[in-house]
Amino acid sequence: MSLEGIRERIERDPFARHLGIELLELSEGHSKVALTVGEGMLNFAGIPHGGVIFSLADAAFAAASNSHGQLSVALNVSISFLAAAPLGARLYAEATEENLGRRTALYRLAVTAEDGTLIALCQGTVYRTSRTVLELPGA
Amino acid sequence: MSLEGIRERIERDPFARHLGIELLELSEGHSKVALTVGEGMLNFAGIPHGGVIFSLADAAFAAASNSHGQLSVALNVSISFLAAAPLGARLYAEATEENLGRRTALYRLAVTAEDGTLIALCQGTVYRTSRTVLELPGA
Amino acid sequence: MSLEGIRERIERDPFARHLGIELLELSEGHSKVALTVGEGMLNFAGIPHGGVIFSLADAAFAAASNSHGQLSVALNVSISFLAAAPLGARLYAEATEENLGRRTALYRLAVTAEDGTLIALCQGTVYRTSRTVLELPGA
Amino acid sequence: MSLEGIRERIERDPFARHLGIELLELSEGHSKVALTVGEGMLNFAGIPHGGVIFSLADAAFAAASNSHGQLSVALNVSISFLAAAPLGARLYAEATEENLGRRTALYRLAVTAEDGTLIALCQGTVYRTSRTVLELPGA
Repeated sequence: MSLEGIRERIERDPFARHLGIELLELSEGHSKVALTVGEGMLNFAGIPHGGVIFSLADAAFAAASNSHGQLSVALNVSISFLAAAPLGARLYAEATEENLGRRTALYRLAVTAEDGTLIALCQGTVYRTSRTVLELPGA
Repeated sequence: MSLEGIRERIERDPFARHLGIELLELSEGHSKVALTVGEGMLNFAGIPHGGVIFSLADAAFAAASNSHGQLSVALNVSISFLAAAPLGARLYAEATEENLGRRTALYRLAVTAEDGTLIALCQGTVYRTSRTVLELPGA
Repeated sequence: MSLEGIRERIERDPFARHLGIELLELSEGHSKVALTVGEGMLNFAGIPHGGVIFSLADAAFAAASNSHGQLSVALNVSISFLAAAPLGARLYAEATEENLGRRTALYRLAVTAEDGTLIALCQGTVYRTSRTVLELPGA
Repeated sequence: MSLEGIRERIERDPFARHLGIELLELSEGHSKVALTVGEGMLNFAGIPHGGVIFSLADAAFAAASNSHGQLSVALNVSISFLAAAPLGARLYAEATEENLGRRTALYRLAVTAEDGTLIALCQGTVYRTSRTVLELPGA
């Protein structure tokens, strides 16, 4: 399956689109995504909601883990929150493949600000199903 | 600080409101929240996005960990995804305090479906700051 | 496969024996183990080493996750350290099955002191292989 | 406080000595340790016990997080087990500082075999106390 077909399906992810997450880079085992923190993405303390930071990391995770064409589902993610970011900040999440097994794979997910400040860091494991991304309904 | 004042601030959380998350229960060290899975909350595989599930758990986490009046910020959350849920499903997240220290506290966050099926389970740690929730701007 | 055969194999675990870990309870999806903190189990700050606390939790995890007879291997464990314990303390770890899937399963692992104080709390996921515990060499 | 004084205290860690863990490298925010898998370190399935792998990672974690002289205690570690290693294998754990805050710090802990194979990968958070490593009793 071509990376183009995979990219196309990933880009149609409804929740990622809803948050305005953009897929900047996609290659086998790697991805980079970005989002701009809007007013509706803050928490009650006035900083970006943990769910928004996680969603951005998760978007990178899904892209990288499905990049081989084998449909992958998240089993576990451990996220550490390191710094806040202001309203309007542009945030990036990059997924790096640490390990690719037959049935599971492990990714490092780093969320950073424009200036490189680490906002959050995650370690995530997927279960690699025996289905392919291609089997999902296309455009 | 009264639980009512804390509840009022938590309920004004912009991202939780954006997702339609409702605060059902709040007492010291405990909370329960709910959300209905809408179309914009799915991922590219057609099931609720990991970011939505996390956000629901995180809303319960924030409510319970701030319920003592001392402003708490998430340090780390480990989430395990156990089952999917269909579009339109009503999901609940319940936070239980496992440990309350002077500087940190630990919570169990369980996301369940209407029939009690466990959708996701998290363990989350907060850092308890020396500020109070009351210091946040009020209504 | 009988629980007795499984218990026998688990009790021959070399590292658990080396640390003096005892298997107190074993039933399907549940186990309880114990250990007494000896001098050689402390860390440089004079409290029980994180590796000892983890090993105790891991022993309960292995017992409970293999209790169904299907050989299970740890994929991920998230451990939170909550309190220290003195030299000579009797520590317990109890494993509770939170979820049992076909290919993975999730356990809560609680390490407590004699008086019930929570020393550490873990969430652990196993991959359930297609081999059985019985296939391991017997006594 | 000199790194030499810190190194001396870390090297007297009773449990690390008991397992034969050697401190190979120590600098501010970084450390590398090693261990040889002995017969008493296996689990009931005949591979290195999860507790041994964790203990090695934890030794690197303790060394790196205390390297600044401020006494640090582990709050949380998430460990992913990626590959087994045979009896007699030489294993290494390297700790890298991902973030250093005033009250908490985050480390990446990688356990590898002689040939570089990733055996386990962890993300660990410490709480940085207001005591110093120097306050611990010396030689």
